[in-house]
Amino acid sequence: MRFVAEIGALKGVLRQTMLAGRDLNRQENSAEHSWHLAMMAVVLGEHAPAGTDLVKVTAMVLLHDLVEIDAGDLFLYADAAAHAQQEAAERAAAERIFAILPADQETELRGLWDEFMQRQSAEAKFARALDRLQPMLENLNAGGGTWQRHGITADRVLAMVTLIEDGSASLGALARDVVAAAVDAGMLAPPPT
Amino acid sequence: MRFVAEIGALKGVLRQTMLAGRDLNRQENSAEHSWHLAMMAVVLGEHAPAGTDLVKVTAMVLLHDLVEIDAGDLFLYADAAAHAQQEAAERAAAERIFAILPADQETELRGLWDEFMQRQSAEAKFARALDRLQPMLENLNAGGGTWQRHGITADRVLAMVTLIEDGSASLGALARDVVAAAVDAGMLAPPPT
Repeated sequence: MRFVAEIGALKGVLRQTMLAGRDLNRQENSAEHSWHLAMMAVVLGEHAPAGTDLVKVTAMVLLHDLVEIDAGDLFLYADAAAHAQQEAAERAAAERIFAILPADQETELRGLWDEFMQRQSAEAKFARALDRLQPMLENLNAGGGTWQRHGITADRVLAMVTLIEDGSASLGALARDVVAAAVDAGMLAPPPT
Repeated sequence: MRFVAEIGALKGVLRQTMLAGRDLNRQENSAEHSWHLAMMAVVLGEHAPAGTDLVKVTAMVLLHDLVEIDAGDLFLYADAAAHAQQEAAERAAAERIFAILPADQETELRGLWDEFMQRQSAEAKFARALDRLQPMLENLNAGGGTWQRHGITADRVLAMVTLIEDGSASLGALARDVVAAAVDAGMLAPPPT
């Protein structure tokens, strides 16, 4: 119960992603982002490689950002030094937050988070593909969103697409189409020449 | 993909529940509420009756509020006429929203939502127990929250506790403790005499 109360704080962790549409036009928080990924795991499961455990993927995306309660969210396109610092902060957060659970559940959920971070299993790779695809769809929906606000060019988004392909060939192809459509529509700047 | 984009609108549906704590102090939205329930399904599964399919419970709580994209959220303690009107609006919303999916997924997800609404299966009863328990925990966390804002007294909260007991004896007992603690702390008014 203390864990259930504690994790509510994820609703206060803001991401760079801008939400657009009726009653929105604000930054997304990590709790609703995690909900969106879990729904994607439910409806896009057929895009995972055969044999992928979608129950595990769903649990993984639900909890993947809990460490941000302490560590905050880092912008995907931040530099390597910032990412290294973030990873250390997230590991410290994982130590604290999962330890609130009874020991057997701490082991289970911490194990899922470690697996997500290691990105070796089919489940972790597919979970990461969803985590990379969802903000691209939000940016498309917002007419450019974070790409425009931070001056992100298509080459940097395509580097993320390779991570999506690593988890799902068909979602990778779809992401590549999203990038092309966003460039054509003037929502995303082409690579600098 | 159109379904994935469409459901993002649930992040704009505000509930009566007030969130408290660092960076919060605002109304909760239905997407982050649904995430919280799914996390509760993951960590509180042992409180479900033996044989309950927790994978189904998780999917059910993730999608249970999608109809609010069209129908909006109705306050739990609204009157019977308002609840009847809401139910009709939610059924119309279900017709539209689940039909965005390919036919096989429409049948599957609509079936889960219908099952949740009928509240006959162990899965639906446990999902509803989580849905009733979570706002009580938020109100406790907020020092009274919606109970105080709307002048809800303990007898009305205890009527909800019977619905929690219907899904899980142990979570029902816990909810009863929450009510007693909230009354003792002056966060929740005792029944009118």
